[in-house]
Amino acid sequence: LVGAGTDRTKPLFEGGPAIVLVRPQLAVNIGMCARAMANFGLSDLRLVSPREGWPRTGARRKGAYAAAAGAVHLLEQARVYDSVAEAVADLHFVWATTARERGQVKRIEAPAVAMAETAAALDLGEKHGIVFGPERTGLDNDDIALASAILTFPVNPAYGSLNLAQAVLLCGYEFFKARQGGAVPFERIERSPPAQHEMTLSFFAFVEEKLDAAGFFRPESKRPVMQRNLRNMFHRMNLTQQDVRTFWGAIVRLVDGPRVKPQTRKRVRPKKPGAAKAAEPQEPGA
Amino acid sequence: LVGAGTDRTKPLFEGGPAIVLVRPQLAVNIGMCARAMANFGLSDLRLVSPREGWPRTGARRKGAYAAAAGAVHLLEQARVYDSVAEAVADLHFVWATTARERGQVKRIEAPAVAMAETAAALDLGEKHGIVFGPERTGLDNDDIALASAILTFPVNPAYGSLNLAQAVLLCGYEFFKARQGGAVPFERIERSPPAQHEMTLSFFAFVEEKLDAAGFFRPESKRPVMQRNLRNMFHRMNLTQQDVRTFWGAIVRLVDGPRVKPQTRKRVRPKKPGAAKAAEPQEPGA
Repeated sequence: LVGAGTDRTKPLFEGGPAIVLVRPQLAVNIGMCARAMANFGLSDLRLVSPREGWPRTGARRKGAYAAAAGAVHLLEQARVYDSVAEAVADLHFVWATTARERGQVKRIEAPAVAMAETAAALDLGEKHGIVFGPERTGLDNDDIALASAILTFPVNPAYGSLNLAQAVLLCGYEFFKARQGGAVPFERIERSPPAQHEMTLSFFAFVEEKLDAAGFFRPESKRPVMQRNLRNMFHRMNLTQQDVRTFWGAIVRLVDGPRVKPQTRKRVRPKKPGAAKAAEPQEPGA
Repeated sequence: LVGAGTDRTKPLFEGGPAIVLVRPQLAVNIGMCARAMANFGLSDLRLVSPREGWPRTGARRKGAYAAAAGAVHLLEQARVYDSVAEAVADLHFVWATTARERGQVKRIEAPAVAMAETAAALDLGEKHGIVFGPERTGLDNDDIALASAILTFPVNPAYGSLNLAQAVLLCGYEFFKARQGGAVPFERIERSPPAQHEMTLSFFAFVEEKLDAAGFFRPESKRPVMQRNLRNMFHRMNLTQQDVRTFWGAIVRLVDGPRVKPQTRKRVRPKKPGAAKAAEPQEPGA
């Protein structure tokens, strides 16, 4: 995959819900979370009592920065708090992420529903956050009690353990999808314009004439169904004008054999019933 | 997060589209992909010419197995091929993942659409696969040409670099969502039954009587709107029967002050207009 990396010439999305990591155990995981946030345009990282401290110099900080890849700006902007209550004080709505049932009467949503709600609320000027517990244990019940609702992940029940950065990634992914309407970052490349029906029908007539001459439609009684099948195969390709020209040229070559040298070249022009000008045969790549 | 891990007492999903890793550079990334697959019930892992070889003994194998967490069975079942063509030979439909436009006229879909299509096709007995390129470079154009269509990820354009396991994770997540209809792995806990309207109205009458006695509704002209607002606040909580009993008990204590000792206890029973039997006051936790 990969290929893109950080590219400051492209639109940079920022904002989104706050990502609150509660007592994260490893600095490297904080870095991986920052990377996952940047992938989906989240930029508000908050840390509650990180076990290895934050920020700090030395190997741990280095590990976090390496794991963040190009998203070190998120680490540098990260705010550190002593308690979950302080970390979420300015937020209007807080999702607590949990991997299992936690005995609290709260609404439970999957990321797609939760993040669609958050994206809509952010558009109205609200501030939302998502709280993630420590890697091994998840959130305390007291941390969960601070949240407005629970966010959990639809996972294989027998193998439900997501790592911290993956959980952040899935939230970011669904938030970005909701914000962007799921648009992909690039579209199908510019194609030749689609072939108009006149052109396609001329092509079919040409192909069928050649196949007929080659004795393809046998027995004669099967001709209608064979023709229909063949036409449907081509229709399924949604032929462009260039596609038709390419096929036409290929069939001319198959029928007539290799081109003879230019000086003795005999120009072969297929007969095109109702020949459309646009449908002239061409070699592939012409 | 976390909390669940591998739990063989719970339903284990297997199958799903084949995950084809083409020339993966690091064994540890193969392990992380296996873990992401297991999270979402995918089990068909295929490797094309892994750079570090596969399987092998030593540190690299160990790193891959550690990264796979409980999903080592996927590593053990993984099949190794010399070419992409061989790896996808038995598949009916192949998605090529790319992070950028690759100049090929193919359909391009985001994971949500692609995996919904794949889940539906698998139900009909087809075999689908998703091909991922090496970490740094992504798929060759020749690899992409083998695919039926392109799968790409809606990401922050300025920060489009997903790591290999994250790309696998997002595909698995969308596949599992499509297969399961997005159901979360646990539901809201059993709540006390919702309060019937008779109970809620008795509670409102009780509260308003106490507030009235305490001189809360001032000026008198504001009483209707104050009452309405208060009732709406309670309605928004979707009160359960237990909630009503808890509030009722709390207000009794607020009004009457601390309970006196049992021997001299004066039993306080609030007046309940139209008192519903179910609405008896109770201390929280009673």
